[in-house]
Amino acid sequence: MEKHRYLERVIPPEQALQRLKELVRPVTESLETPTWKAAGYVLAEDVKAWMDFPPRPRSAYDGYAVASESTPGKFRVIGEAAIGKVSPGFSIGRGEAAYVSTGAYLPEGADTVIPEEAVKREGEYIIVDKKFTRWKNVDPPGSYVRKGEIILPKGSVITIPDVVGLLNIGITKVRVRRKLRVGIIATGGELFEPSDPEETLEKISKGLVADTTTILIEWAIKEITPWAEPYGKELMPDEIESLAWKIERMLDHVDVVLVTGGTGPSEVDNFYRLCNKLEEKGAILVFRGLRMRGGRPTSAMVLRGKPIIGLSGHPISALHGFIRIVEPLLRYMAGVNRAPASRLVPVRIAEEYSTQFPRLLRARLEYGDDGIIQARILPPEKQLSSNIVSHAEADAYLIVDAKSHKPGDIARAVIYREPTRAG
Amino acid sequence: MEKHRYLERVIPPEQALQRLKELVRPVTESLETPTWKAAGYVLAEDVKAWMDFPPRPRSAYDGYAVASESTPGKFRVIGEAAIGKVSPGFSIGRGEAAYVSTGAYLPEGADTVIPEEAVKREGEYIIVDKKFTRWKNVDPPGSYVRKGEIILPKGSVITIPDVVGLLNIGITKVRVRRKLRVGIIATGGELFEPSDPEETLEKISKGLVADTTTILIEWAIKEITPWAEPYGKELMPDEIESLAWKIERMLDHVDVVLVTGGTGPSEVDNFYRLCNKLEEKGAILVFRGLRMRGGRPTSAMVLRGKPIIGLSGHPISALHGFIRIVEPLLRYMAGVNRAPASRLVPVRIAEEYSTQFPRLLRARLEYGDDGIIQARILPPEKQLSSNIVSHAEADAYLIVDAKSHKPGDIARAVIYREPTRAG
Repeated sequence: MEKHRYLERVIPPEQALQRLKELVRPVTESLETPTWKAAGYVLAEDVKAWMDFPPRPRSAYDGYAVASESTPGKFRVIGEAAIGKVSPGFSIGRGEAAYVSTGAYLPEGADTVIPEEAVKREGEYIIVDKKFTRWKNVDPPGSYVRKGEIILPKGSVITIPDVVGLLNIGITKVRVRRKLRVGIIATGGELFEPSDPEETLEKISKGLVADTTTILIEWAIKEITPWAEPYGKELMPDEIESLAWKIERMLDHVDVVLVTGGTGPSEVDNFYRLCNKLEEKGAILVFRGLRMRGGRPTSAMVLRGKPIIGLSGHPISALHGFIRIVEPLLRYMAGVNRAPASRLVPVRIAEEYSTQFPRLLRARLEYGDDGIIQARILPPEKQLSSNIVSHAEADAYLIVDAKSHKPGDIARAVIYREPTRAG
Repeated sequence: MEKHRYLERVIPPEQALQRLKELVRPVTESLETPTWKAAGYVLAEDVKAWMDFPPRPRSAYDGYAVASESTPGKFRVIGEAAIGKVSPGFSIGRGEAAYVSTGAYLPEGADTVIPEEAVKREGEYIIVDKKFTRWKNVDPPGSYVRKGEIILPKGSVITIPDVVGLLNIGITKVRVRRKLRVGIIATGGELFEPSDPEETLEKISKGLVADTTTILIEWAIKEITPWAEPYGKELMPDEIESLAWKIERMLDHVDVVLVTGGTGPSEVDNFYRLCNKLEEKGAILVFRGLRMRGGRPTSAMVLRGKPIIGLSGHPISALHGFIRIVEPLLRYMAGVNRAPASRLVPVRIAEEYSTQFPRLLRARLEYGDDGIIQARILPPEKQLSSNIVSHAEADAYLIVDAKSHKPGDIARAVIYREPTRAG
């Protein structure tokens, strides 16, 4: 492995991502899972309807099912077609009606539903005073979906509303790709995992640092890339031999390793040393440093077709690396075509902002006069990577590209608090 | 309790909500919790800084800490100030420098940081060729926050980024309101809880209905009102005596009961019967039916100061009741001033849409030319409450008010799938 100076060859994030994709192996193993457990998984194949749905005429309103040809007229109510049976178990003849709730299947002989509020009741009779046509207030067979029709295409991440929709037409299992497993290693001799509030406070007062970077990264995985899951999290000191050993062991079980910390500028470049160490096992350095602020030391190598990504030890800078590199990489590795809605949404930039570098900026959110969410970027002193207090003053992390932004321009943001009303 | 005809007195959702708020008791019990477990909880009191932060000058850049008065000049590097210690344990004199990483505390004697890339190195010396002023690339004491300053106000729901920010300045515990407990009862003889895919399919084929409404409502609680938590979920047949008994038992443990199903129009109005039954225990009917589509039968009573909300048995209609009534009610009961960002966000309506009623509509999402998310409402036949297949065709539930919407108008939507590119 060629030696060169620290971060002298930073490259743009898009180029870094492209290089990574060329070296990394997608994870295509699939499994069959009950539909109600499938939310967050990526469909491994198209989901198709296996029957026309509804299979029989179904009421689209609460009212009385009758034969349309007998309307207007007087009908004797002979029963109720309850929800929960494909056939109500009786049929209606001329001059007969059955009460139906929305979603109930019509009895044989009925092809129209008279809304409850449109009838006059006289004892066991109802009076319908105008003509109702066939399938009025009725969903005819096959009107929602036809047998063989694609309901949800391969590569879609299944959402809870999809689960609801699929279950209701009898799709009770689906074939999905297994979730990507993401191992996380936080490095730094100063780090500790908080346990008790008093002890934690004591440690922080001494200058030790509670590991919060991986808290933020685990949150990002859960909220933005639910088709991946944190799979083991470890704290490690800045000791290259141990770290290399740990990564190797982790790679037996995971698809991606994220290493936070230890990637920053220092007299000793740990990521290089780590990569040198793993080179003998076949590791390839993909990039070392990105042309962006913060998260400039974001780096990557590939070993056994699996990416090992070095993220900053600073939470927000690590998140920047996550958004620019890890998120699109996890999409690629899992074959995601349509992701769930996430906290990563477009917002409007409230004021002019120019930058030479891609950045992740802390911003307040407010509703503009027209109701669109707009982001006010916090002033530069609140953007200092070491100023973590500004998390509480901000509501979002705004992702800006290297250019001049005019007020009203749209950028993506990771939003974590609801906007306030402007004014 | 006065008897009157089914849904003859529907009222607008805002009025219904107002009535409910007047009768319901907020939940103000609080507890102290470690900060790292506090995400999703509502702050019971302001969080204030208990010290100036940073307590000592802290590097805002990777480089060399020196005394500003000695710049420009030549300095001998005598050590490294590591992150993880409030004091590096040594001080620097005239003509001396220490390597500092971003976030490290400066040694005594230093008040400025020369960026790594701005120095020339000569063996153990660095050469700084221009003047650096005091606090350049340094965060002075108290620059992030002053002792006593409010960091996060009472009534804020704590987010993961807040956890990160608070932990980093030594706020290791917070006082929060306990989570609201929401009991959920799904009623309907046709319902079952899915267990095995094959058995589930067999039941659905016979016309039984997998309970998906509460799956959607539990999702809404998790995604939109995380300060509340589902607390027990029960399936019950449409049997008023048992249902009343079950609700009473549940009320011993929860703050809110949601009853799905059994609220729809029928020969027998179950919600009235239920309310009659519970009247002897002190239940007060608050409203029976809302002026909106779907979820028109949404109803509420109050018992022991706790709301019992009847939601439709249909998933989307139940969600409409949740958005219009339950969400703002849970906000009120928990004292929420600032909620987390959620799946409930503003989007632009792509095409003209007029309605006499407040509605929840299935819509596709796409990015407009300017990058704003816009919603295309699915055609009327896809909006039928009994057509559940359209969940998969849609990406969001659009919440529209009773009026004429022009293209470009903003409305809220519950988004569940990422938008496609328009075109």
